[in-house]
Amino acid sequence: MPDFTDRLKPAAPDGTTVLAQERGQSDVPVDELAKHLLSNDDFLGRQERMLRIVEKDPLFNKTKQFNLSRPDRFKLGLARGKKLRRYSDQYGWDAKDHEMAVYLCDDVTPYMVHYAMFITTVREQANDEQRAYWSPKIDAMEVIGCYAQTELGHGSNVRGLECQAFWDPKAKEFIIHSPTLTASKWWNGTMGRTANHAIVMAQLMLPKEGSPGEYTSRGPHTFVVQIRDMKTHKPLDGIAVGDIGPKYGYAPMDNGYMLFDRHRVPHSAMLSRYSRVDPNTSEYTKPANPAVVYGSLTYVRATIIMHARLIIARAVTIAVRYTCVRRQFQDRDSKDAKAPELCVLDYPTVQIRILPLLATAFALHYTGEAMQSLYWNTREEINQGNFGRLAVLHAQSSGLKSLCTELAANSIETCRRAMGGHGFGGPSGFIQLNNDYLSKPTVEGDNWMITQQTASFLIKRMQAAVDRKGKPQDEIEGHCRQYLDEKNGYKPSQLRVFDRDEDIVEAFRRRSRDQTYRAHVARNEQKQSWNSLLIQLRRVSHSESQSILVQNFYNALQQKDSAVSSTLHAHLRTLFRLFAFYTMDSEARDFSRAKAVSDDDLDKIPAKIQELMAQVRPHAVRLVDSWKIPDFLLDSALGRYDGKVYEDLFNRAHRLNPLNEITFNPYYKEEEIVKGSGENIDSILAKL
Amino acid sequence: MPDFTDRLKPAAPDGTTVLAQERGQSDVPVDELAKHLLSNDDFLGRQERMLRIVEKDPLFNKTKQFNLSRPDRFKLGLARGKKLRRYSDQYGWDAKDHEMAVYLCDDVTPYMVHYAMFITTVREQANDEQRAYWSPKIDAMEVIGCYAQTELGHGSNVRGLECQAFWDPKAKEFIIHSPTLTASKWWNGTMGRTANHAIVMAQLMLPKEGSPGEYTSRGPHTFVVQIRDMKTHKPLDGIAVGDIGPKYGYAPMDNGYMLFDRHRVPHSAMLSRYSRVDPNTSEYTKPANPAVVYGSLTYVRATIIMHARLIIARAVTIAVRYTCVRRQFQDRDSKDAKAPELCVLDYPTVQIRILPLLATAFALHYTGEAMQSLYWNTREEINQGNFGRLAVLHAQSSGLKSLCTELAANSIETCRRAMGGHGFGGPSGFIQLNNDYLSKPTVEGDNWMITQQTASFLIKRMQAAVDRKGKPQDEIEGHCRQYLDEKNGYKPSQLRVFDRDEDIVEAFRRRSRDQTYRAHVARNEQKQSWNSLLIQLRRVSHSESQSILVQNFYNALQQKDSAVSSTLHAHLRTLFRLFAFYTMDSEARDFSRAKAVSDDDLDKIPAKIQELMAQVRPHAVRLVDSWKIPDFLLDSALGRYDGKVYEDLFNRAHRLNPLNEITFNPYYKEEEIVKGSGENIDSILAKL
Repeated sequence: MPDFTDRLKPAAPDGTTVLAQERGQSDVPVDELAKHLLSNDDFLGRQERMLRIVEKDPLFNKTKQFNLSRPDRFKLGLARGKKLRRYSDQYGWDAKDHEMAVYLCDDVTPYMVHYAMFITTVREQANDEQRAYWSPKIDAMEVIGCYAQTELGHGSNVRGLECQAFWDPKAKEFIIHSPTLTASKWWNGTMGRTANHAIVMAQLMLPKEGSPGEYTSRGPHTFVVQIRDMKTHKPLDGIAVGDIGPKYGYAPMDNGYMLFDRHRVPHSAMLSRYSRVDPNTSEYTKPANPAVVYGSLTYVRATIIMHARLIIARAVTIAVRYTCVRRQFQDRDSKDAKAPELCVLDYPTVQIRILPLLATAFALHYTGEAMQSLYWNTREEINQGNFGRLAVLHAQSSGLKSLCTELAANSIETCRRAMGGHGFGGPSGFIQLNNDYLSKPTVEGDNWMITQQTASFLIKRMQAAVDRKGKPQDEIEGHCRQYLDEKNGYKPSQLRVFDRDEDIVEAFRRRSRDQTYRAHVARNEQKQSWNSLLIQLRRVSHSESQSILVQNFYNALQQKDSAVSSTLHAHLRTLFRLFAFYTMDSEARDFSRAKAVSDDDLDKIPAKIQELMAQVRPHAVRLVDSWKIPDFLLDSALGRYDGKVYEDLFNRAHRLNPLNEITFNPYYKEEEIVKGSGENIDSILAKL
Repeated sequence: MPDFTDRLKPAAPDGTTVLAQERGQSDVPVDELAKHLLSNDDFLGRQERMLRIVEKDPLFNKTKQFNLSRPDRFKLGLARGKKLRRYSDQYGWDAKDHEMAVYLCDDVTPYMVHYAMFITTVREQANDEQRAYWSPKIDAMEVIGCYAQTELGHGSNVRGLECQAFWDPKAKEFIIHSPTLTASKWWNGTMGRTANHAIVMAQLMLPKEGSPGEYTSRGPHTFVVQIRDMKTHKPLDGIAVGDIGPKYGYAPMDNGYMLFDRHRVPHSAMLSRYSRVDPNTSEYTKPANPAVVYGSLTYVRATIIMHARLIIARAVTIAVRYTCVRRQFQDRDSKDAKAPELCVLDYPTVQIRILPLLATAFALHYTGEAMQSLYWNTREEINQGNFGRLAVLHAQSSGLKSLCTELAANSIETCRRAMGGHGFGGPSGFIQLNNDYLSKPTVEGDNWMITQQTASFLIKRMQAAVDRKGKPQDEIEGHCRQYLDEKNGYKPSQLRVFDRDEDIVEAFRRRSRDQTYRAHVARNEQKQSWNSLLIQLRRVSHSESQSILVQNFYNALQQKDSAVSSTLHAHLRTLFRLFAFYTMDSEARDFSRAKAVSDDDLDKIPAKIQELMAQVRPHAVRLVDSWKIPDFLLDSALGRYDGKVYEDLFNRAHRLNPLNEITFNPYYKEEEIVKGSGENIDSILAKL
């Protein structure tokens, strides 16, 4: 409906003008940088192709979805999942195309776990016969599967799972059973309402020979179990299964619970590529250690890091564009009473929250890429169980998962707060991003817990270096030996971190080795209990991860063959230094104690960071442009490419808000809620 | 519907048993501590009285509200607001009773700004005649008001507001006008759908004598403007007003936008207690500086801190109870293969996230209380414009608002992550708490911005100390002089922070003075630009705020008249030391540079913190019990007083989740979404 607001414009300068100026003042080669960052596996081309299809489909319109109820969000999610699958058929998408489409739509679908864990587990753990049986049904999505591992009472500690699978030699069946409430499967996606089958992780219980009614546990094994009727889609008898209810984010995902009441499944249910129970003799074959998992875990973690960098890039894209458009207060030192208000990105207090994160997105990129290419380059060796350098990186990847998902999760909230009031609004584009991503520090290994794995590995290498038998087994041990050699004779002034980038790398390494050494002393010499060291072990892990990020960023800048232009190289080097010094500053006391950087130099770092931020500032918009996050993905009035921030905010409020279609009765003596309708609260009360 | 899950119990030991043991092992006098913390203004008694009324009213049942759509959440919020107001009439509640009821229901109502800003502004800024006219209508809620200050383009910078009020001397009317889109009022609560009147903040534009059509701006002034028809509740002509749409949290609040198209209001609309335009001569009377605001702002900020402590207490209550009930992994150093799994609060990595926050709740308590009592004790002086020590505290209160709301906001997410997977679920009780509270670091003065006020004040006191004219004007200047005296002759080993609590206090003060002095040198001697110092100024402010928190906590422990038992005193002292050392450790380099604590001592702090956490650990449950947060407020399966964590999680999922009442059609080739209904997605598509 036209009204007087239609002719209003934002106060000058408007966002479009501002962003044009910002782009005009910078020499960052956006397309070159985009290619540099996003060529792998034709990411950019694929993004463009998928975008063309999904952005014109009204089913994927995001603007108003936050108004929907949870049941409606789920219905919408299911409809979107179906539609994407039909597009796959129609356009012949491969798995990566489909994944890209889901990424752009930015809404998890209830099929997610089918595509991810269910398919992979059957592929990797089923024997040939099982695979031949299941694969066609899975591909056709007649069988829709989920992955039921985590339980109400157990997450990280898989060996503690309570769900049981008793082998019944007479019936040649397994009896899946939940002995307690805490044995209920819990959190498992796609299970609550969608799946008709599940991979169930259960303790394999084999009858004790000669002791009827007694069983020996063989630890957790995987079973394929039908859980719902193929016609009615109702749970089978002896199975209680449902959705666990609303949670942070993931509204369209049916994270579920499931309990079994002595539910019988055939012998073929147990996935038997690596371990099996002989149906005739009840003899158990232990799993061979599937070494390939070792390599593919590295790859999965590289993927998590590559995803984390896109999350940071997305948060920073919105924050940079908006804080350029947003103006507030004149310069306090200005003599001119009519001076224009400053753009908020010009305040160091805004820069310090956003620009180091911009640099962090690049840091994560190079480490993710290094991990991926190491995996591909050594894949043949990996398949033969020969890991070499990958073994080191694999051990370190726990720490990297922990640090990188933490950086990404925190980046969202940091950027949001840096945007002031409008950051709190739905059109910021941060609400769903935040709610969905916040699971990442917890899932696939809790971030605090898994740092133990990295620290444990590093302490072992330090012990080996102390023992010094023969040649170093890997490069970490080599570094440990070098650290021990230098430990006493070493002077902190030797490193010149402001002059030589390689000294920055070395400072991070020394600081990490110093942390490792202190933990080694505490554990191996002072014999302190493992649990009493956990806080320290996390520092050991994070130090190492920061060192890896700095090292890989540095390495990328040295590569002659990547042939980036000298203009681009200069910008990347500034970002490298910004990331490194920002990280160094936030851990300054560690560097001081490790004598890796002198106290004098550490005192100078805050000024150096401000200097580097001033260098990045004029290029900030083009730097975020280079990540090529489409407006469709951002769904952010604040982060739009064209800078029409205020126009879009107003449009969403004034024209796209369903609440404004309702006139309420605000007078408290009247029970009526909607004006003139006589409608009171009973219908909603029934939903409480 | 009964089923086999009804007879299942959680694995032993169940939560009820665990919490009983936890409570049994501690000597914390819960009721004494609760009285110590919550007696002020009969908080506990009031909580109990209000709880009895609201918890039995099904309208305030929280469990299923997260399933509702935004429009339904708003309707529910309005119905709740009406009901509470009717209860006020029925039971003769005063304002504090009503506030307590809203607090317990934990859901903002659309009336919120009417009760808060609207009533207060009319009371404080209307002249007697205006007040006599408006007050009865406001009290009866025939006039329902909001407070329209912030605009689309301006928040913190109130002087930059664009909305205008032109004085028309002929018609003796003001013309309220929004010249641009960015002049739209924005974010203003209660305005979007509920209010029929608004306090509008607009630039007062007075005609320039002798220059027809030209105006002089007299800066922002307040006007009472009717915005909706009293019968139809539709916006008046020339006004566009509505709700801005979903945002983080506050689903039942209609934060609004509003634009004026040369909308005329009578002369009486301008609130004229402090400034006025003579209707006959058009002469303008400047506002007298209402000094009382100075004092009441201190009080408001004390209230923010007292609220922040309850937020932290609430997050910690849930986290402590749940991490006691939750078990995961055996002790890695245990020789016993059948050892029970450890309760996760026994891991130092869990303790370090939760227990210092528990101590923080107490730290905030004593500072909030100190501010409040200082306000009440000196109220007579304040009303006479005589501030004395309050002036210092007032300047510091900006920094305290910034630090304390930040600590509280971050505490929610820190506790949530410490709880692992279940922390991410709706029954954690964290989702709405988090979404609602996250606005606090931004509203009522952006946390990064307002630290300038504190730093600016401190730097001026340091300059005065350097100039050293006559007696110190206040105690801060006295401390600054002392700092300058000691600066050269001072040896860091003098303070014995591990032995003497007063040395902890002194260390915080010295470190804060050191930060102030460095900023003073940068600004006043090196003449660096204000904006280039902003990051440093924030540190100045936070250092001072931390020092105040430590000082007030320490002071409270010294008070003989408060007469806490010696048992309780010992626990409080442990918490004091934990808070102080934890804060010191996270800022260790500052303390080292300030020579406030020796590097040797700083190196020992992490071990000291672990030692203090081990002391707090057995008492954690009773310490959180003492905050007396009712289960009704917590609405958390994880944080229940009785420990029935898993029973409640399962109950909410299996019996209270509306999604489980729907059977979906999961097969992608079929458009049908709900099984057997033929219902496809069109009805939802219409909502996108």
